[in-house]
Amino acid sequence: MGPTTARSRFSRRALLGTAAATAAAGAAGFAPRSVAAPQSRADAAVSRDLARKMLMVADDERTDLTLEYLRILIDGQLPPGPATTGTRRKRVLVVGAGVAGLTTATLLKQAGHEVVVIEANGSRVGGRIKTFRGMFADSRLYAEAGAMRLPDFHPLVLALADKLGLRRQLFYNADITPGTRPVGAVPPVTYRSFTGETWSNGPEREFRPPTANFRTFLAVNGLQTTKAAYNRSPAEVNRSFGARFDTTAAQAVDRAFAKVTPAGDLGQRLDGWTEVFQKYGYHSTRRFLHEEAGWDPASVQAAGTLENLTSRLHYSLVPTLIDHAVISPTNRYWELAGGTDTLTAKLAEPLAAELRMGRRMTRLTQQAGGVRIETMAESGDEESPDGAPIDPTEVFEGDYAVVTIPFSALRFCRIEPLMSYPKRRAVTELHYDSATKVLLEFRTRFWETGPGGFTGGGCASDSASRFTYFPSHAPDGAPGGVVLASYTWADDAMRWDSLTPGERYAFALNDLERLFGPRVRREFTGVGVTQSWARARYALGEAVIPTPGQLHELHPAARLPEGRVHFAGEHTSLKPAWIEGALESAVRTFLEVNAR
Amino acid sequence: MGPTTARSRFSRRALLGTAAATAAAGAAGFAPRSVAAPQSRADAAVSRDLARKMLMVADDERTDLTLEYLRILIDGQLPPGPATTGTRRKRVLVVGAGVAGLTTATLLKQAGHEVVVIEANGSRVGGRIKTFRGMFADSRLYAEAGAMRLPDFHPLVLALADKLGLRRQLFYNADITPGTRPVGAVPPVTYRSFTGETWSNGPEREFRPPTANFRTFLAVNGLQTTKAAYNRSPAEVNRSFGARFDTTAAQAVDRAFAKVTPAGDLGQRLDGWTEVFQKYGYHSTRRFLHEEAGWDPASVQAAGTLENLTSRLHYSLVPTLIDHAVISPTNRYWELAGGTDTLTAKLAEPLAAELRMGRRMTRLTQQAGGVRIETMAESGDEESPDGAPIDPTEVFEGDYAVVTIPFSALRFCRIEPLMSYPKRRAVTELHYDSATKVLLEFRTRFWETGPGGFTGGGCASDSASRFTYFPSHAPDGAPGGVVLASYTWADDAMRWDSLTPGERYAFALNDLERLFGPRVRREFTGVGVTQSWARARYALGEAVIPTPGQLHELHPAARLPEGRVHFAGEHTSLKPAWIEGALESAVRTFLEVNAR
Repeated sequence: MGPTTARSRFSRRALLGTAAATAAAGAAGFAPRSVAAPQSRADAAVSRDLARKMLMVADDERTDLTLEYLRILIDGQLPPGPATTGTRRKRVLVVGAGVAGLTTATLLKQAGHEVVVIEANGSRVGGRIKTFRGMFADSRLYAEAGAMRLPDFHPLVLALADKLGLRRQLFYNADITPGTRPVGAVPPVTYRSFTGETWSNGPEREFRPPTANFRTFLAVNGLQTTKAAYNRSPAEVNRSFGARFDTTAAQAVDRAFAKVTPAGDLGQRLDGWTEVFQKYGYHSTRRFLHEEAGWDPASVQAAGTLENLTSRLHYSLVPTLIDHAVISPTNRYWELAGGTDTLTAKLAEPLAAELRMGRRMTRLTQQAGGVRIETMAESGDEESPDGAPIDPTEVFEGDYAVVTIPFSALRFCRIEPLMSYPKRRAVTELHYDSATKVLLEFRTRFWETGPGGFTGGGCASDSASRFTYFPSHAPDGAPGGVVLASYTWADDAMRWDSLTPGERYAFALNDLERLFGPRVRREFTGVGVTQSWARARYALGEAVIPTPGQLHELHPAARLPEGRVHFAGEHTSLKPAWIEGALESAVRTFLEVNAR
Repeated sequence: MGPTTARSRFSRRALLGTAAATAAAGAAGFAPRSVAAPQSRADAAVSRDLARKMLMVADDERTDLTLEYLRILIDGQLPPGPATTGTRRKRVLVVGAGVAGLTTATLLKQAGHEVVVIEANGSRVGGRIKTFRGMFADSRLYAEAGAMRLPDFHPLVLALADKLGLRRQLFYNADITPGTRPVGAVPPVTYRSFTGETWSNGPEREFRPPTANFRTFLAVNGLQTTKAAYNRSPAEVNRSFGARFDTTAAQAVDRAFAKVTPAGDLGQRLDGWTEVFQKYGYHSTRRFLHEEAGWDPASVQAAGTLENLTSRLHYSLVPTLIDHAVISPTNRYWELAGGTDTLTAKLAEPLAAELRMGRRMTRLTQQAGGVRIETMAESGDEESPDGAPIDPTEVFEGDYAVVTIPFSALRFCRIEPLMSYPKRRAVTELHYDSATKVLLEFRTRFWETGPGGFTGGGCASDSASRFTYFPSHAPDGAPGGVVLASYTWADDAMRWDSLTPGERYAFALNDLERLFGPRVRREFTGVGVTQSWARARYALGEAVIPTPGQLHELHPAARLPEGRVHFAGEHTSLKPAWIEGALESAVRTFLEVNAR
């Protein structure tokens, strides 16, 4: 089905939704919207809207946006644009060459528009998709600084990777027996819509991943055991916290969250999530566990430690609910052979002429006729201490702008005239979190040897390192591997963010030694790498992780256009921190701009 | 009154309280306390204990600890110790040479004990008391990286400064007319106890500070006005947020908080604070404003922006309640002429022989007979990127240890045997916040000139810079001055923490230009300095700012000794982030150790 036949299928209203409708209504001018009327708390209409956006249902509550976006992004069924209908070609300035910016630019270009992609980083595209390579003793090795696992139920990113010819392989969130492999070839991406339709990018085939063993460790309160042993008899570990639940922590959390995780058909889930948003929009995870699930503090501490909730307990419940469903050992994950950044590198290839690297937006102005973006040349790299913006400036002009950089970065740009009050609040207040990784290279994969050996998976501990992940694959038969010795979020990450790289390697190695004994020192190649997203000068944080109330008060405005300026990026989606959210926002923004 | 006459005045039980009583009870061993019994939420007994600790009342609910501590710290009325009674001299290892460590060491030494103070920083003492000097174009200028204002009702720190012969001068939290001065000489420190007693370090004298003008600016939502104009007619600024209150934001917050700020005699305040802790121990500030004060989101946003609450809305209410009472334009503040670090420099002088600089604790072990601390030599400075700990190690042994470093730093030390479960939770979970300053030097104090000119005080804006403070004094007649162009906390600070120093200066100068016009660029000497406490490798954060529930769940254990190891520092007090809290903790810890 080509673009022409696809035309009739587009209900402009359904696909564009409130955002573009609002933009269209106010298209005559770009004056700040009248000063905000007071918003009511956990507003019912906002809750319904959040439920729709989370479930990717259009405002008509019938159109499946995931399905439509798959047809646009993967099948190339673009809506009418200059390329097909000779409508006016627009010049669009896309700010930021992360996955959202690159994808928006790609679609706009495919539709026949002229795009310029302005990227502050002088040395790479990809934003928070970043792969460390060329820095390990074994040049075959690489490791992820940012996004590392693609959930099986994120069809846009998986299908995009397939479309770009990238090779997917399993990411073992739970460990497997070394040397085992999946049975069958990589299966297609299949999306079953609530409309009854099924989208797929290939024929179904048999595929069976290796069995998870859970031989990786839990090390808390001076005890060390395997996850399998804990799963069999959780009592001793639970008791070491004084926790009251008698199941595993994961099961206890599942049970508490299951009560407020709506299921059923679309109507039931819409109603259910509306109620969750309305009832718990202002709840922190801790408050929910105490007041709704009836947990005592010791149980919260136990589950917080074992299930990586501790550092985010004071944040909004709802994203925790959603992510808990996503990051589970029972879910299937993928990774891209060669590194996640092969995705953004591949997306950037056809945009070589459109990309302006090393230009950082300092000012954005809009007038009735168009937008104007001032930039400064960047020096230094993305973490360099001498990377202060330096003249000369370069100015870009266009009909529209698509801003995909994090709001934490946008905070430092001058925008004239002032954006609307709700948008400015979102830029100011949306909570960007910390996430930090410390990676250490080892000569051999010593964790794979012996009877308790494992490949992939991760350990959880109450040490500063908290979570340790092991590589799922050995690139090109390399004998060694890079261990994600410490992966932390929020307050856990902030502790590491204060330290220098050298200190991080030393402390992470200490913690690893406690798990595996002194052999880790002999095996260590001396090469460590580390990524603190809170200290990254173009990212200014890991991703949006909302605090209580922020989804209601800030999310609706976060995604709305301001005059001729549109907004994409994970922070404008209800899958914040995920590539899938960035892609959803890119297709949405493309549709908004193309329709103007 | 000398130490001998003072002896009879000490009720050991009253002064030592639960901490030492527990320590004494468990003095035979240092085994981890039995695994925590589940704590009940907002427990009544814990609430009562927190109220006592906050009001500095001993467990007997009669003894005023502030008064007792003044007598010990300032009047030198030490309890019996080796110096006076020939009891056994103890060898005490004090870890950290911030104000808590230096003060504990001073008192222990005065009492006749042998102390060693182990400090990681190789170049300075003082911890989060830090003065920038010798880095400005005008060598007479200095500016505060950390603590900059001493509230009038913090008697320990003020009296200690006086005792050390330091010169106090007013810190103008609200601006005054340039050239005006207080009437009279600096008054003594006077503390009126609830016992009816009054403590003072000198005769009362007449003292009248200059009148506050409130000529500094508010700049929000595209409006710019003076604080005086806003105080006179707050409607336009309030309306720009959609706020519902018709007073100033400060008055609205005062009113909301007044309802839950206990007053009256000691018994009433004890009961009142017990109720506040019990009722609101798990409330965030946002939750309180919504659910208890009935505020709508727009009003919260307005007061959050104008009163510096926004970035900490999701943190615990109680510390906000307390700090709101403290940081108010109507309170009187002091600063130390020559810089706040003259306090810690002066404290360190007599400890020259006891101080071991450039040694970082890596491991602490205790046995029945004593404590052992392994350290590593430090290289680099406190923010150096190549400051990884390097051998050789040096080992210190003693009878007892007093650990005063932040728990965020302690997280990376190996402690054997394991500390008790509640203490480990406190070390792991207590929230350390971000606070960041960007300071710019100007050739002249242009803000003081003209009819709207002012000295001291600060501006509030919704720009990234948020809060801007002007110097209260011109050291040695310097014509220029250092402006604290941006002072931010929490999420507001995290945005700046991602940036390099050069970027911070550029962005802060942009924001200042919006307030004062292009002249700021002509006046800028080109010298900026900046302090991100979250990025400081020995501090690992600004201070403890608890999230909801943390006071109940973590504070009680934070201050308790573990076997032969005692704990001091602002994080073990109920005045976290304040020098006063660090001093209170130092006297408490001195008493604990001296009594063993």
